[in-house]
Amino acid sequence: MAELVEVTSADDPRLADYRDLRDVELRKHLEAEHGLFLAEGEKVVRRAVEAGFTPRSYLMAPRWLDGLADVLERSDAPCFVVSEALAEEVTGFHVHRGALASLERRPLPPVEEVLAGARSVLVLEDIVDHTNVGAILRSGAALGFDAVLLAPRCADPLYRRSIKVAMGAVFTLPWTRLPDWYGALPTLSAAGFTTVALTLGEDAVPIEQAVAGLDKVALVLGSEGHGLSERWQQSADRRAIIPMAAGIDSLNVAAATAVACYVTARR
Amino acid sequence: MAELVEVTSADDPRLADYRDLRDVELRKHLEAEHGLFLAEGEKVVRRAVEAGFTPRSYLMAPRWLDGLADVLERSDAPCFVVSEALAEEVTGFHVHRGALASLERRPLPPVEEVLAGARSVLVLEDIVDHTNVGAILRSGAALGFDAVLLAPRCADPLYRRSIKVAMGAVFTLPWTRLPDWYGALPTLSAAGFTTVALTLGEDAVPIEQAVAGLDKVALVLGSEGHGLSERWQQSADRRAIIPMAAGIDSLNVAAATAVACYVTARR
Repeated sequence: MAELVEVTSADDPRLADYRDLRDVELRKHLEAEHGLFLAEGEKVVRRAVEAGFTPRSYLMAPRWLDGLADVLERSDAPCFVVSEALAEEVTGFHVHRGALASLERRPLPPVEEVLAGARSVLVLEDIVDHTNVGAILRSGAALGFDAVLLAPRCADPLYRRSIKVAMGAVFTLPWTRLPDWYGALPTLSAAGFTTVALTLGEDAVPIEQAVAGLDKVALVLGSEGHGLSERWQQSADRRAIIPMAAGIDSLNVAAATAVACYVTARR
Repeated sequence: MAELVEVTSADDPRLADYRDLRDVELRKHLEAEHGLFLAEGEKVVRRAVEAGFTPRSYLMAPRWLDGLADVLERSDAPCFVVSEALAEEVTGFHVHRGALASLERRPLPPVEEVLAGARSVLVLEDIVDHTNVGAILRSGAALGFDAVLLAPRCADPLYRRSIKVAMGAVFTLPWTRLPDWYGALPTLSAAGFTTVALTLGEDAVPIEQAVAGLDKVALVLGSEGHGLSERWQQSADRRAIIPMAAGIDSLNVAAATAVACYVTARR
């Protein structure tokens, strides 16, 4: 049973994990240094714990205790009980979903482990927006993808905002970082995947055609602003496009991913 | 040629259109009352003006003047030139895209006008998130839809954030408000459209099957949290689902829309 600890001062050092949640740069450093991540909202906290992540602590206003009673019942981590005003003072925003939890990150699995048995894989190059990373993981999971690989500079799926948008998919869909950017796609090809890069390049073929009849597919997606790097475009086995109406420059990367996943899952 | 007017005080009443851009509730009232909307960033400002919206004024730091020189050249509205610090003080955030413009809203066209000649139409019930409204318009435009109809309580496509996410689609894709919520879908059916509601309901059939061979289609989408109202689910001609992996509750509405538009456009 989690020990309920009433905290009344925003300076209490036990609340350190929950400080300034809106300060993205500060949070990146703090979370990396301490190997933690934040889950927000009853549903997300529950999914994180059920997925086996170890809680360091919980923070919530009294009215949220009941909703998570079963989770707290089975937990050894302390639960800091604070007023809503204090929660807002510490985190820097109005915590309208109520419950927060700080959980331990786990070592990222090796690429081979994530790929074992996978038939449809997403590979994200430098997606910088946490909302997009979350939305892509959610779509991938919903549309039947088995795993996600992230380039070294892709945004963090365990950042609070990514988790919230992914609706828990980040806890259940296997994912890891690629150790090597330059050779990533040829390595996947050598592992038996046909790498299909989504691009607006001139030699791109419609996605349905690009994936038709393929066995193991790695769908490769680039950053929001500039798309895929030249290196990844050129080192992919195939280049594909989602056919668009005349005069439209592109789809949002999360929308493009949803369409590409749907088409690829039905190849 | 727009008159360049240097402004040095945040209290200058001429900057009233640009106040507190992050305060959603305040902006909703202010923009409705004055019949204006805000465009942000060189590309979006340019697209709004090129789409024929009349600017009331521009606001920008000196370094953004060159990029919009051609737009200002052809405009009669004043351009308020301010320091970046002053822009931040007035708007309430760091305007990293630089140029802002306040433009006149136009009277919404009648539904019949928006539907004239349309073969694929999106109908949004109560989408509350401006990012989702923008993303849906962008996907609709990119994937070949001809028009968008909004239920009376759907979020505003001309809100700054919607416009930004829509990347200009809100200026080019015809859209309007439905005057009547209750009878909206039967009215569309009477106009020759097969209304296809995206739902997780038990009698929903896969989207590909639901739209196969149809001529005029209206794809009907519900709100983020609870989906479509019972009334709209029941008054639609067909109910459709995007097939999903076991154990996943749903796709994000913007992702679902992208997939549904793609499939419907290729019916």
